[in-house]
Amino acid sequence: MREKHNRRIVLASRPLGEPQDENFRLETVEVPFPGEGQVLLRTIYLSLDPYMRGRMNAGPSYAPPVEVGQVMEGGTISTVVESRSPDFVPGDVVLGYTGWQEYAVAAATTLLKLDPARAPISTAVGVLGMPGLTAYTGLLNIGQPKLGETVVVAAASGAVGSVVGQIAKIKGCRAVGIAGGKRKCDFVLNELGFDACVDHHNAPFPQDLKAVCPKGVDVYFENVGGRVLNAILPLMNPFGRVPVCGLIAHYNLSELSRGIDRIPMLMGAILVKRLKFQGFIVSDFAAQKDEFVRDMTQWLHTGKVKYREDVVDGLENAVAAFQGLLKGRNFGKLLVRLAPDPTIA
Amino acid sequence: MREKHNRRIVLASRPLGEPQDENFRLETVEVPFPGEGQVLLRTIYLSLDPYMRGRMNAGPSYAPPVEVGQVMEGGTISTVVESRSPDFVPGDVVLGYTGWQEYAVAAATTLLKLDPARAPISTAVGVLGMPGLTAYTGLLNIGQPKLGETVVVAAASGAVGSVVGQIAKIKGCRAVGIAGGKRKCDFVLNELGFDACVDHHNAPFPQDLKAVCPKGVDVYFENVGGRVLNAILPLMNPFGRVPVCGLIAHYNLSELSRGIDRIPMLMGAILVKRLKFQGFIVSDFAAQKDEFVRDMTQWLHTGKVKYREDVVDGLENAVAAFQGLLKGRNFGKLLVRLAPDPTIA
Repeated sequence: MREKHNRRIVLASRPLGEPQDENFRLETVEVPFPGEGQVLLRTIYLSLDPYMRGRMNAGPSYAPPVEVGQVMEGGTISTVVESRSPDFVPGDVVLGYTGWQEYAVAAATTLLKLDPARAPISTAVGVLGMPGLTAYTGLLNIGQPKLGETVVVAAASGAVGSVVGQIAKIKGCRAVGIAGGKRKCDFVLNELGFDACVDHHNAPFPQDLKAVCPKGVDVYFENVGGRVLNAILPLMNPFGRVPVCGLIAHYNLSELSRGIDRIPMLMGAILVKRLKFQGFIVSDFAAQKDEFVRDMTQWLHTGKVKYREDVVDGLENAVAAFQGLLKGRNFGKLLVRLAPDPTIA
Repeated sequence: MREKHNRRIVLASRPLGEPQDENFRLETVEVPFPGEGQVLLRTIYLSLDPYMRGRMNAGPSYAPPVEVGQVMEGGTISTVVESRSPDFVPGDVVLGYTGWQEYAVAAATTLLKLDPARAPISTAVGVLGMPGLTAYTGLLNIGQPKLGETVVVAAASGAVGSVVGQIAKIKGCRAVGIAGGKRKCDFVLNELGFDACVDHHNAPFPQDLKAVCPKGVDVYFENVGGRVLNAILPLMNPFGRVPVCGLIAHYNLSELSRGIDRIPMLMGAILVKRLKFQGFIVSDFAAQKDEFVRDMTQWLHTGKVKYREDVVDGLENAVAAFQGLLKGRNFGKLLVRLAPDPTIA
């Protein structure tokens, strides 16, 4: 049964600005053997997430960068092929962090066994996984939404934004989404149940946003930055909260743009409106994982939270899919399927 | 005993950028009569504070602007000249908010009687007043300094900064000040007991600052903005806190400066280092006033907190003194003395 070859994508060079095809290299290597306490995994789903852009840079960040020549990192859902651990048997489906490759060897201690009867396995890297936990912990701990307040989130049809808005609704808030294009906005409004969704492709975007926030904005869950932040600032209410989760609009900036320095505007708004801006990383709230899984599982079962996945087939399409993610081309949680999902009949 | 004339300074026009002499007008008018429940006050000390620059602008802020033609606002310490309230008798010394004028009528309910035996009356607008409370509440509630952490504050010889650093020392932190010129730095180090003070007039300011923060910065009490913020950002430690109290370097900006937009840099630092930036106004923490007065009175009596005042004589010098305040020309808490202090022998 052992497969002879493992295809993997390594970082060939560090991107300057937008990642280009030549920054990546598809390699075919031998499938490694698991050592004692390890398992050999075949990847079913690879999760693609915006934070990966940061890992491609050499500069210091909250995690070490991927080295040039190293396999791109990423969360994965895999089938156990061989096990040298008493904790796993072949056929087990596990959540791991084995990166952009078809096979991987991993220490058993780094894996979490998934129960396909509980929820579709792909949700372990989506609504029930890192993106869902990011939305949950950032919104509740830092955003602290209160009944009747207005919560705004961009990338509202995406893995994190969709959960932010739906939890805001559960907490009795007005949920306002921002998304690119009519299809996504319709989905955010009609399927996810947000109160409003603004299409940032439309020209009078700041005015559109203002129109759907008649009582201002109390919580802005920041995952994009750029012109969305600029449009939000004048709308923020006193004592507003801004959990800073991501800045996808900035990730490809290779240099700061010329123009005007708007730091005085931002700092002035923080001062005069007594805003709180606070950055966070999902791992800061790891202790809330069980509470999150309990709440989110219940919300999924009762239909209070819905999700959408955008599944791309084949490792060879991962780079293009990731490039599209940074441009908002995906529609829902982006996954690359490297092997058939054995839990789907 | 009634004085015939009241001299006062009104806002003649709104400054664009730095306040100019012609933005103010010294007027001489009749001394008003107190109505029922009111008292007539003679100002002893007028407090000059950076926030007053914001009041000169028409734009929305946390408080309504001073209207053109209106007396400039400000905290004052005064003697009661006539009283039509059972709560005050002539000779009482009171804290009020009666503005840039020699006489004023005020409702008794807006005044606080001071006990000259407890502390010098001028401290009621300084270390025991609004600036002290600002430092205390912003540092403790938002900054949350912990034993062994590094706390940085600019305008370190000023009314707020001097208290921030001294409370940081009381809490077991390394206190680093920033001040303009050797005299101020010597005072901050030798009199106030900070661990270090960096002269921002010196050319290698960012390097000097880095050198005295070998373990990075955990709390930056922001009261200046501008290039100090730029120098601090790379030094901030993960989970650092930035109480945003004031932005004196920005107050005179009539337009945003051209150059580069550094918002991505600031937001990126907030995200990657999980910083908290939070604006506040002293009135947000009014409920902590009694606790503050108790603590600060004790610290003053035990010598743990020291203060320095910069006293200018005569209302006619108030405008120049205020212009100097915005340029850091004062050395200590800036006061204008409009009448002899009756409590000083």
